[in-house]
Amino acid sequence: MVLSLVFREETWCFTQGEGQGIQPRDIVCRIMAANHEGSRRVQRRAASASHGRAWMTRHHERRKPLMHAQQIIATHPQVKGNTNDALIRCIEQCYDCGQACIACADACLGEDMVAQLAQCIRSDLDCADACFATGAVASRRTGSNEAVIRAMLTACETACRACAEECERHAGHHEHCRICAEACRACERACGEALRSMQPG
Amino acid sequence: MVLSLVFREETWCFTQGEGQGIQPRDIVCRIMAANHEGSRRVQRRAASASHGRAWMTRHHERRKPLMHAQQIIATHPQVKGNTNDALIRCIEQCYDCGQACIACADACLGEDMVAQLAQCIRSDLDCADACFATGAVASRRTGSNEAVIRAMLTACETACRACAEECERHAGHHEHCRICAEACRACERACGEALRSMQPG
Amino acid sequence: MVLSLVFREETWCFTQGEGQGIQPRDIVCRIMAANHEGSRRVQRRAASASHGRAWMTRHHERRKPLMHAQQIIATHPQVKGNTNDALIRCIEQCYDCGQACIACADACLGEDMVAQLAQCIRSDLDCADACFATGAVASRRTGSNEAVIRAMLTACETACRACAEECERHAGHHEHCRICAEACRACERACGEALRSMQPG
Amino acid sequence: MVLSLVFREETWCFTQGEGQGIQPRDIVCRIMAANHEGSRRVQRRAASASHGRAWMTRHHERRKPLMHAQQIIATHPQVKGNTNDALIRCIEQCYDCGQACIACADACLGEDMVAQLAQCIRSDLDCADACFATGAVASRRTGSNEAVIRAMLTACETACRACAEECERHAGHHEHCRICAEACRACERACGEALRSMQPG
Repeated sequence: MVLSLVFREETWCFTQGEGQGIQPRDIVCRIMAANHEGSRRVQRRAASASHGRAWMTRHHERRKPLMHAQQIIATHPQVKGNTNDALIRCIEQCYDCGQACIACADACLGEDMVAQLAQCIRSDLDCADACFATGAVASRRTGSNEAVIRAMLTACETACRACAEECERHAGHHEHCRICAEACRACERACGEALRSMQPG
Repeated sequence: MVLSLVFREETWCFTQGEGQGIQPRDIVCRIMAANHEGSRRVQRRAASASHGRAWMTRHHERRKPLMHAQQIIATHPQVKGNTNDALIRCIEQCYDCGQACIACADACLGEDMVAQLAQCIRSDLDCADACFATGAVASRRTGSNEAVIRAMLTACETACRACAEECERHAGHHEHCRICAEACRACERACGEALRSMQPG
Repeated sequence: MVLSLVFREETWCFTQGEGQGIQPRDIVCRIMAANHEGSRRVQRRAASASHGRAWMTRHHERRKPLMHAQQIIATHPQVKGNTNDALIRCIEQCYDCGQACIACADACLGEDMVAQLAQCIRSDLDCADACFATGAVASRRTGSNEAVIRAMLTACETACRACAEECERHAGHHEHCRICAEACRACERACGEALRSMQPG
Repeated sequence: MVLSLVFREETWCFTQGEGQGIQPRDIVCRIMAANHEGSRRVQRRAASASHGRAWMTRHHERRKPLMHAQQIIATHPQVKGNTNDALIRCIEQCYDCGQACIACADACLGEDMVAQLAQCIRSDLDCADACFATGAVASRRTGSNEAVIRAMLTACETACRACAEECERHAGHHEHCRICAEACRACERACGEALRSMQPG
């Protein structure tokens, strides 16, 4: 039996051994360790602290900053808590993807083989522009502007697809391109889901 | 003894009762419930499922989208994993705050008392512009441009402070202003920490 | 014989009468008039000042956003002077329209009747976001990204049309809305012409 | 007696000689020449065409970004025609410079020697971000936000200076860098003048 928990932007995986329960002190000591120490020492400490009952390993390290998109939009006088979650996920993906594209363009620019990455940098910059504009338009709920939201989501989906395809060509050589392609694909999907979530208007 | 865990973008609070351990099946059944059901029913289910040993309540609901900022910048050929974490937190806060300001400006615009929120909307829009530009400049690592980063961080800190002060005036009446002020203060702090983290140049 | 001159962003049309030359003092007195007075009084002054030799009328008032866009893009290694003028006019219109929308949204926000202008402000802000992103994407010539340019031009044309329609509703009451609608219509046309100027690809 | 005229974005200076009038055919032939030929040949042609009566020289070549900025801001309910012209020139320079930087970054990216232009591309992109944010903040007149405008103008002036210095290094080899440096210097000056035009607050 495995239990995944997210703590301090890390996902931790508890695996029960010997059919016994996890004692709070075990979980707490490990979480304190995760909090105050580096991951290697944590895993050693966690291992030593687990009395044959359970152990904990860091599954992955993705940092998760908090975006306030959902919280604020839920308080909009014309929304009253009834948010379109697909559109809100899309807003978050737009800002994540836009930042990833700016950072990937800059990392490509720093590579020795930059000449071979010119198309990638250009696609990154176009995608970032489309993402930020779409994130802003999709963040507004006053009155209505559905034709514009749809057109922007369509343009953003197109830009994300083009950028993902280009970055995937370089993913084997450049980790920043691999991660950026991942962010672009996530944003491309989120734009498509947001489009499908909107009533035709 | 209380244990806080984040799962599926929700923070859950385990409180041990009767000095006994939390059994994995209790945690799992509650997390499955959190995963598949609405929070009210979860809390009922959690209560009924806790055999006098532990109970679980949802602490708050902040969604945590993943930003790839740290991952990508860590792979920059001139960074090689040696990231300035204060600057990366600042990038993430800039995009969060910028989006929060766009959404708060739009929510203010939808309020009946919009005329009394004109200064707030204007501060929101200025702050959003400063945040996105600063997030972009702070995302680049090729070559150097420290004087520009510092000037942008200073401008962003100023815009966040001004917007937070204005939003705080309306925080009692408008939840979107309260949340936006929170995002602005977090970004103001992050800009200050990023400035202090940079060697004078 | 007609001579057209641009002065202070206005095009002036000199028509020679009676086969005689235009004396510098005539031109100067009229241009001084154009400079220091409103156009109606200028035309009266110009008429009275023209001793049957030549007269000057304001041909049209369209301001001309003339940026470095054409000059720089013409020097792009892959363009080599062979610019797509429709696309360059579109870039200039995008930045002019984007700025006009930001300024109109802010002027609306300053009006006593702001509550009746909420939809106008929202359309202005969406249009500005679409315009700046489109201006940036349309400014790039390295490699290719035609599907993205086309999708952005389409989204921008949609946003400009929506904003123009909304601003035109208020053009009678608010001069900033009248001027903004003019800028939006010009940008809408420029996006359409840029789209038609691109080979399908 | 000197008469300055703007034609096709160039300022032309007519100087009357021998106390005689300028004949329309002289002006027209020169303007046709200005229209269809390069400036050197124009001046030769203009000289040869002036029968000792008047000659025409190109005064300067600076293109003039003339947007709707002034027109709209002059109609703001809190401005009532009393515009700060230094701030309006700055807005226009910000958008012109921002677009020039995007186009120069893209032209640099298309050069064979792109690896030697990495710092230039990075400075261009940072400058564009600072310019657009500053142009937006400087376009607003509702309520007040002077500390933010000043901080943004200062950051923009810094970014323009840094970009101009870098582009000037490449101005001999790349015309787009020469033109971009010109736009950056104009915007740097405009930001400085706008700062001086604001009352300390």
